[in-house]
Amino acid sequence: MDYDADLPAHVERVLAEFLRTAGGPIREIEPTFGAGLDALSGFVLGGGKRLRPSFAWWGWRGAGGDPSDRELAEGVLHAVASLELIQACALIHDDLIDSSDSRRGSPTVHVAFAKEHADHGWLGLPSTFGQAAAVLIGDLALAWADDMFADAPLPPATLAAARPAWRAIRTEVLAGQYLDVHTQVTGDSSVDAALRIDRLKTAAYTVQRPLHLGAALAGASDELVGALLEFGGDLGVAFQLRDDLLGVFGDPSVTGKPAGDDLREGKRTLLVALGLGYAAKRGNTAAAGLIEAAIGAPSLTESEVDDVRAALAEVGAVDAVEQRIEELTSASLAALERAHLAEPATAELTALAAKATKRTY
Amino acid sequence: MDYDADLPAHVERVLAEFLRTAGGPIREIEPTFGAGLDALSGFVLGGGKRLRPSFAWWGWRGAGGDPSDRELAEGVLHAVASLELIQACALIHDDLIDSSDSRRGSPTVHVAFAKEHADHGWLGLPSTFGQAAAVLIGDLALAWADDMFADAPLPPATLAAARPAWRAIRTEVLAGQYLDVHTQVTGDSSVDAALRIDRLKTAAYTVQRPLHLGAALAGASDELVGALLEFGGDLGVAFQLRDDLLGVFGDPSVTGKPAGDDLREGKRTLLVALGLGYAAKRGNTAAAGLIEAAIGAPSLTESEVDDVRAALAEVGAVDAVEQRIEELTSASLAALERAHLAEPATAELTALAAKATKRTY
Repeated sequence: MDYDADLPAHVERVLAEFLRTAGGPIREIEPTFGAGLDALSGFVLGGGKRLRPSFAWWGWRGAGGDPSDRELAEGVLHAVASLELIQACALIHDDLIDSSDSRRGSPTVHVAFAKEHADHGWLGLPSTFGQAAAVLIGDLALAWADDMFADAPLPPATLAAARPAWRAIRTEVLAGQYLDVHTQVTGDSSVDAALRIDRLKTAAYTVQRPLHLGAALAGASDELVGALLEFGGDLGVAFQLRDDLLGVFGDPSVTGKPAGDDLREGKRTLLVALGLGYAAKRGNTAAAGLIEAAIGAPSLTESEVDDVRAALAEVGAVDAVEQRIEELTSASLAALERAHLAEPATAELTALAAKATKRTY
Repeated sequence: MDYDADLPAHVERVLAEFLRTAGGPIREIEPTFGAGLDALSGFVLGGGKRLRPSFAWWGWRGAGGDPSDRELAEGVLHAVASLELIQACALIHDDLIDSSDSRRGSPTVHVAFAKEHADHGWLGLPSTFGQAAAVLIGDLALAWADDMFADAPLPPATLAAARPAWRAIRTEVLAGQYLDVHTQVTGDSSVDAALRIDRLKTAAYTVQRPLHLGAALAGASDELVGALLEFGGDLGVAFQLRDDLLGVFGDPSVTGKPAGDDLREGKRTLLVALGLGYAAKRGNTAAAGLIEAAIGAPSLTESEVDDVRAALAEVGAVDAVEQRIEELTSASLAALERAHLAEPATAELTALAAKATKRTY
């Protein structure tokens, strides 16, 4: 297999190896925990776009990392694949916090364990057991992310160079999640709040720090890292804006999530912020009322989601978000050009940028 | 300050330094997260017996670690103090899972953030916000535990030697917590289940792996590590049995937790397992009924807790647990003698053993 061409398959290979090895001793000591280990493996290996390892890999390649040194490439692969375990923790805990029932078309972890509890007629509340399992399995993913990263077969100095990016990515995503929840409860519908969440929770976590991590593994200069952070910042926000649109307009059969769940959960996205802002400016109180009433309304129906879609389009928020995605993507690609990466990294990152901002899922 | 004599103060010093440094950049990027950072600092620096760093330190000293090399001692101090951040995650998440309202006489993290929400009259349910904050702040503690350990100023080979213990401690405590929750919902009141939880959740996590970690930092032989694990296994179970007794019989003004909370939460401790077993053997259906009815009864009153206390004593479960604590402590001290540690480690570990098994809090 070719590392560059088959990157997601390589990432999944080392993740599967790691999960088997890491779970071996504890499965023997305490077989009861097997259900937790299986749930984590199923979650990690059950899908996902492997975006973060991909950005990290191309950060490494762009900074001169050479996969013809197979031993080194395997080490880098371990280090970047561990990002998927951080992501497993983030999603499992996020789904619990947001009370989401399904992800990628399957029940979320807390829902699956609550069902297990109910099916067995165990003591106490199914939801309490589901919560406990999701907290602990997410914790395991986070602890194992660190084990996988720290034990990546790389020279200590190589790994040490990537530590600042590793430190930043975990702290920043947690700060972003906290800000997201905080903004939902305070009801801050400002464009500024939405963009701060996008920069921290998505841009830094999904694009910038993975690129930084990969580039640092190749010993990149501060200047190169700076150019990658500039590319990743704009691209990451564009990626989140696409996600916001899909959260309201996406086809559930493609996204694997019920349409309108972002609205039900009360997410104050840029789309919503612009929708409310434009409706107010135009004196369109009907549209403003529809949008405001939908945010954080758990029992929102399909047809009410349709009404909000129409209102967001009518006041111009959808066009404005599409335009921002285009502008941010262009700006990011200009920054990428200026970075003068080793080829084929520029071409691959350009393709990733297109995939992240034009996707339908 | 003398490292050996003032160990808890040294542990708190490096924790305070780490928390300030680790939180600096994110506090600047996103001041909203300051509430989360402050909650974690308050929790970590607000008390605790520093038992795990102490066992780790004495594992290091016992395996020949020499604090007269101050640079090395500071590095070891950083590595062992990071165990307190794992513990912060474990307690914050455990309190959430168990719906505990207070710890060390203060509101638990999820309760404090729910109150913040209610005081501000924010949107949604206070308990949902409290849950989100506790999940994310616990996650931060776990991620920072790894940062503090991995960035301890020690030679790479020294840290690498301690990695197996570091890996084991996090996986084992999570497996132990899962087993604990699982046993509560399945209602398994066997002595075997109680002891499996004690061995995994307390003995391995609180005593064995900390000793292992410390000894490994000093380059201990497998033989020495084995002797320490033997000492720590018996001592750790004895420690948990003392905790079980305090959970039912402890003075709330000393323990900081409401008396009987272990019963309300449905914890299937050895004390409870023996109580039920002895009551059945003696045909004491009144005592058996009292104990069984109390497990997992959230609204248990003070006077009902008194009745359970009397029942546990009457059937002989309290004496039996006290006797086990004594036997396990003796066996552990015999294993400690056989380990032939560098002095004053034997004396200090003997004192820690007494503190852990004879305490009233």
